Amino acid sequence: MTRIGIIGSQGRMGQAIAQAVEAAGCTLAGGVGRGDDVRELAASSDVLVDFSSPAALEANLVAARQAGIPILIGTTGFEDSHHAQIDAAAQDIAVLQTGNTSLGVTLLAHLVREAATRLGDDWDIEIVEMHHRNKVDAPSGTALLLGEAAAQGRGISLAEHTDSGRDGHTGKRKDGDIGFAALRGGTVAGDHSVILAGEQERITLSHMAENRMIFAHGAVKGACWLLDKRAGRYRMGEVLGL
Amino acid sequence: MTRIGIIGSQGRMGQAIAQAVEAAGCTLAGGVGRGDDVRELAASSDVLVDFSSPAALEANLVAARQAGIPILIGTTGFEDSHHAQIDAAAQDIAVLQTGNTSLGVTLLAHLVREAATRLGDDWDIEIVEMHHRNKVDAPSGTALLLGEAAAQGRGISLAEHTDSGRDGHTGKRKDGDIGFAALRGGTVAGDHSVILAGEQERITLSHMAENRMIFAHGAVKGACWLLDKRAGRYRMGEVLGL
Amino acid sequence: MTRIGIIGSQGRMGQAIAQAVEAAGCTLAGGVGRGDDVRELAASSDVLVDFSSPAALEANLVAARQAGIPILIGTTGFEDSHHAQIDAAAQDIAVLQTGNTSLGVTLLAHLVREAATRLGDDWDIEIVEMHHRNKVDAPSGTALLLGEAAAQGRGISLAEHTDSGRDGHTGKRKDGDIGFAALRGGTVAGDHSVILAGEQERITLSHMAENRMIFAHGAVKGACWLLDKRAGRYRMGEVLGL
Amino acid sequence: MTRIGIIGSQGRMGQAIAQAVEAAGCTLAGGVGRGDDVRELAASSDVLVDFSSPAALEANLVAARQAGIPILIGTTGFEDSHHAQIDAAAQDIAVLQTGNTSLGVTLLAHLVREAATRLGDDWDIEIVEMHHRNKVDAPSGTALLLGEAAAQGRGISLAEHTDSGRDGHTGKRKDGDIGFAALRGGTVAGDHSVILAGEQERITLSHMAENRMIFAHGAVKGACWLLDKRAGRYRMGEVLGL
Repeated sequence: MTRIGIIGSQGRMGQAIAQAVEAAGCTLAGGVGRGDDVRELAASSDVLVDFSSPAALEANLVAARQAGIPILIGTTGFEDSHHAQIDAAAQDIAVLQTGNTSLGVTLLAHLVREAATRLGDDWDIEIVEMHHRNKVDAPSGTALLLGEAAAQGRGISLAEHTDSGRDGHTGKRKDGDIGFAALRGGTVAGDHSVILAGEQERITLSHMAENRMIFAHGAVKGACWLLDKRAGRYRMGEVLGL
Repeated sequence: MTRIGIIGSQGRMGQAIAQAVEAAGCTLAGGVGRGDDVRELAASSDVLVDFSSPAALEANLVAARQAGIPILIGTTGFEDSHHAQIDAAAQDIAVLQTGNTSLGVTLLAHLVREAATRLGDDWDIEIVEMHHRNKVDAPSGTALLLGEAAAQGRGISLAEHTDSGRDGHTGKRKDGDIGFAALRGGTVAGDHSVILAGEQERITLSHMAENRMIFAHGAVKGACWLLDKRAGRYRMGEVLGL
Repeated sequence: MTRIGIIGSQGRMGQAIAQAVEAAGCTLAGGVGRGDDVRELAASSDVLVDFSSPAALEANLVAARQAGIPILIGTTGFEDSHHAQIDAAAQDIAVLQTGNTSLGVTLLAHLVREAATRLGDDWDIEIVEMHHRNKVDAPSGTALLLGEAAAQGRGISLAEHTDSGRDGHTGKRKDGDIGFAALRGGTVAGDHSVILAGEQERITLSHMAENRMIFAHGAVKGACWLLDKRAGRYRMGEVLGL
Repeated sequence: MTRIGIIGSQGRMGQAIAQAVEAAGCTLAGGVGRGDDVRELAASSDVLVDFSSPAALEANLVAARQAGIPILIGTTGFEDSHHAQIDAAAQDIAVLQTGNTSLGVTLLAHLVREAATRLGDDWDIEIVEMHHRNKVDAPSGTALLLGEAAAQGRGISLAEHTDSGRDGHTGKRKDGDIGFAALRGGTVAGDHSVILAGEQERITLSHMAENRMIFAHGAVKGACWLLDKRAGRYRMGEVLGL
């Protein structure tokens, strides 16, 4: 029976994953919080699931490499230096890093890429998301993941075509930009919509999460899928065969 | 310059197509209404666009075959016998019959098929549409087109899995059914949403038309695309390369 | 400390209410299921909350009257005869019967009534709702409650102006009708939208429930509000001061 | 027959108003563009409708006062100094200044005020709007008008509680803030949604404009309503009896 170790086990996602591990018929190898020793957990796990913080990434990757086990990373807020650390670790072990572990969001990203590929760039792309009042950053990791999918479909760089947080005298919309808007309030688990607006018609591709369990279920599914994979960096889409 | 003949030219769609023909830089060969002779129009056209009625289909196909020109058919409300007539005509000429000539809807159908293919049948599929208060049938031809795309994605027969117009004591939702609901009111040109509802998450794929011109623009685009095609029955998706 | 007795305590709503009773700092007097004796529960309760079935209504009202305590009734599916029973009981005790115990839905009904009052009847009214795949009736009790609010705003009878479950050749929308459509799928706790569609513009008033706890919280709030009320039949809106 | 003069007659709104004047059975007194003399137009009009620019406001008010006729002002982008000019003119003539001349939006603002009044401030308020790709400012005048209605309902100052254009590390949502987000793309005439997000439930109050004619129709309706009013500053809501 697969033993899953949780990094960031005291957070809301960590607790949800512990539930999902049981629902999936796996074994909970244990969990660690801030300051705990990840190496010990790694030694008794078949795979790690990391929902901690960017600051903890380095230690988490070291532990997984030492134990020679795969790791699924769901933490958000990474910078280029973090991605370089992940690439380095992926020389030795299987790593799946994703801004969203939901299978629904993963499919949505695929559909967004396809839509952006087929429709000409005279269709403007906007991404709007809503999360609960306690979220501290914007846009959400999932919104950026969807924006990346749209940019790939168009063959452009997202960084060079992002227009986030419009306010004040903005001027006309810049051709080719991908717009982002963030709503916050209540207890919303996470809604995302990608709007493609053309001449007199609009396509909207949306995902709604009723609660955080969907991310936990997908994280466990992804972790199990990683078990027999060779060293390398994987995408969530591969879990769905995309 | 391509000469386009409009069958049903006095209807709202017919008038919109006349505008779109000009906007596309084509020539309007002329138009006919109920009771007019289609053969004369066909003789002076390079391609026909038909938005008339199921009752007029036979005469329209005869005229196109006699003139040896392609025909794009946007009429809705066909029964099996009408489709047999179209198949027969497609032995001699190029025919594109579609419940929706919008390029946006055509792409949406493709995305719906893809989503239904990738997600397991534990995701329930519902289709809801809204049209103006004067529409006389439900569900709309576009809703059925989207339902057909979903059924294809799942490898099932839509006819055997349709649940339309829920009302009263319905019992639990039947596994595998594709549900349809129709809203009517105001001057709505046409909104369609396909909802895939899973465990605690939902994907919604929507299209909104601001006005009827989108159908006219797509119809003209499709008609021009037909010009150099061999005899056969074509789909709107092929115009987008799908 | 207020002692709340739950009728239908083994159902999903009954269990949610037990949680909400604790969250509100009240005491759970106990709960009964099908076949249990409600009179005993009533004797040790300050107020009853009933989420059982229409068939159990008569016995529940008898128990409340004998104990001389108020009762909040959230059961749906009532016919005229049931409402007559409730009216009779309201001669002796305070009764709050509602198709929806959510404070959000209650406010929404108020806004719908106001909108229907202010806008002329050239604005068409449509109500669409979505619930989980296990719901057995359509439209939902909440949809009917919202329809009733719209009908009141217009000064018409809902029964004479209902158009539910459109399918097939419907003809043009009948002026003044209030339309209903029901979507079913996944685990949706309950979404409702009231659309007012006019000439080239639409107003949509919506409510989304993330889970059933909102009904439980509102039911407990309503039950506590009933405690010091005189005999009579009350509405949920009165809890919000509407 | 009422003679309506249009200031800004060459803009898109100006042209739409000219159409609406005819549809309403009124007489078009004429129109002026940038640099034209408004006084001449005022002399031959019964009422002015102004959709020009903040820079032209002073001259427009002077002309209306000299002619002693009312003026409806639909221009957006005003600062405090402009509002002071309007207040001064309203000493002598009837002035209706509004960020949105749609009757639907006007009703929506009323519903938003009511919802914000009834629901406690533990419900977070967010406003999101979408407009066509050529709009140069954000949030829209209508979004601000809706935010003002929400702030009035809560008895707070909008200026002190605005959170617009979230981006980057924002921290948790500040209690009591009213959030704004702006989407831009395609040919969208104007969609607005006010979301009230509470514990596990959400109310969304939305307005969709299919095209700009709704603003023109409402502007003409408002202008006619102004004809017999005494000097003073009026609100669009008064046209609906609110």
